[in-house]
Amino acid sequence: MAKVAFIGLGVMGFPMAGHLAARGHAVTVFNRTPARSQAWLETHPGRSAETPAAAAADADFVFTCVGNDDDLYQVTLGPDGALSRMRAGSILIDNTTASADAARKLHLEAGKLGIPFLDAPVSGGQAGAENGKLTVMVGGDAEAFAQAETVIASYARAVVHMGVAGAGQLTKMVNQICIAGLVQALAEGLAFAKNAGLDGERVIDAISKGAAQSWQMENRGKTMLASQFDFGFAVDLMRKDLGICLEEARRNGSLLPVTRVVDAYYAEIQKRGGGKLDTSSLMMLVDRDH
Amino acid sequence: MAKVAFIGLGVMGFPMAGHLAARGHAVTVFNRTPARSQAWLETHPGRSAETPAAAAADADFVFTCVGNDDDLYQVTLGPDGALSRMRAGSILIDNTTASADAARKLHLEAGKLGIPFLDAPVSGGQAGAENGKLTVMVGGDAEAFAQAETVIASYARAVVHMGVAGAGQLTKMVNQICIAGLVQALAEGLAFAKNAGLDGERVIDAISKGAAQSWQMENRGKTMLASQFDFGFAVDLMRKDLGICLEEARRNGSLLPVTRVVDAYYAEIQKRGGGKLDTSSLMMLVDRDH
Repeated sequence: MAKVAFIGLGVMGFPMAGHLAARGHAVTVFNRTPARSQAWLETHPGRSAETPAAAAADADFVFTCVGNDDDLYQVTLGPDGALSRMRAGSILIDNTTASADAARKLHLEAGKLGIPFLDAPVSGGQAGAENGKLTVMVGGDAEAFAQAETVIASYARAVVHMGVAGAGQLTKMVNQICIAGLVQALAEGLAFAKNAGLDGERVIDAISKGAAQSWQMENRGKTMLASQFDFGFAVDLMRKDLGICLEEARRNGSLLPVTRVVDAYYAEIQKRGGGKLDTSSLMMLVDRDH
Repeated sequence: MAKVAFIGLGVMGFPMAGHLAARGHAVTVFNRTPARSQAWLETHPGRSAETPAAAAADADFVFTCVGNDDDLYQVTLGPDGALSRMRAGSILIDNTTASADAARKLHLEAGKLGIPFLDAPVSGGQAGAENGKLTVMVGGDAEAFAQAETVIASYARAVVHMGVAGAGQLTKMVNQICIAGLVQALAEGLAFAKNAGLDGERVIDAISKGAAQSWQMENRGKTMLASQFDFGFAVDLMRKDLGICLEEARRNGSLLPVTRVVDAYYAEIQKRGGGKLDTSSLMMLVDRDH
């Protein structure tokens, strides 16, 4: 069993840190809002620390799971950041969905200290974090991956090494690009079904075994028909992710015409006050009942 | 066992008529090009006729599976069309992907003769037709559906009654709308993966268990990465179907912004001479290797 620090107890990090503790690792947590650390300690074995640096000082593996690039820089490179106290040979693993640039920068900065860095964004959502069945897409050196793999597996169904530093983040971006246009297509199809006077649920049952099938159709189709947009990945977070995708796409020469359009639709939903709704709320913009 | 006429022995109709014969129905075929009827008779029990009318004269169930609305009108309402000889109480079943208007018109015209009409477009492609595992989406009167269901089931995995005349066609349109934007999103994601230097196949393996999963990702993703666009549903046919969708959408007030864009991309592929490529060829327009 390893000594582990976990920095960032949000809706994802809280249960992920819990799975690490449940596997028997000695977990020290840090969270910007201390009440959240207190809540975690009330239900899990472990310790809490006052700063990311203090949490990380004694750890073999330091996990970060925060909001965005800036938060990530702060908890790793900032004055009380984890890297100020981590020892050479320990490994820094970031579960934040961040830019590939941030991953490359941390790989470089941690490397200077003899600390391998792995970018390890996850998919599977809050439910996946809670039941320990996330998919973890990892970029970084193969040797560090091999050392960290079984520890990461504490909260994962699959841990996949995708390539060099940044490759984990880039894979997560592919995931989000595929989802954006897919959900929009599903919304257009279901709105058409309603407008055509069809029984939408019956339509989903009829077409969800064939070439139009998708996880989104099976898991969100019927709730979209019922205008329930309150239990998946939030529009605000999706816009953050798509912003990272579109910036990276400009750099690597990718044309993402439909992804760009869908990003604009999500901006429209935010403008209407729907930033906390889930990504299937694209339905609102094409369903004339709204 | 029933007396069945089958009009239109294309890549879909040929094996569908074969499954009807294999179930023991007495099948009479008609095809515009007689050589195709000859080929069918060489491998199946049955008869061929010189005109749709002659094929339909004695039948309990008359199936049509032709190219588009105009072809459908010709083989049913034309001078030697099936309706000129069908007897009252026999049932006309159309497997063409046609407009909902055509379905409503045939429902009306056949109804005047005491002949129930069912619009029954299929999904599952050539492979589904060949192995008798199509999904059949049926519109029309419930009583006629009940009489025809087991006969249609000869070539189907699922036969679903969707509602009144036209509802089968409208359901097929939902299917095509969902596919159009979904394939474009997949193409954008996979092109991004290539441009980012990722191993695309590895990316598909990593993300195809989660929220980005789709039949298209599982069945076309890797061939798209390899620029193989030669074994699915053709762009020319998809454009015909999307034309029907977009016309119907204008009428019922559906906004299909992404579907419209993807239709324009398919037009661009046709312009480049790719009309016979399959629908996954959207990859060509976003992959900078093309």
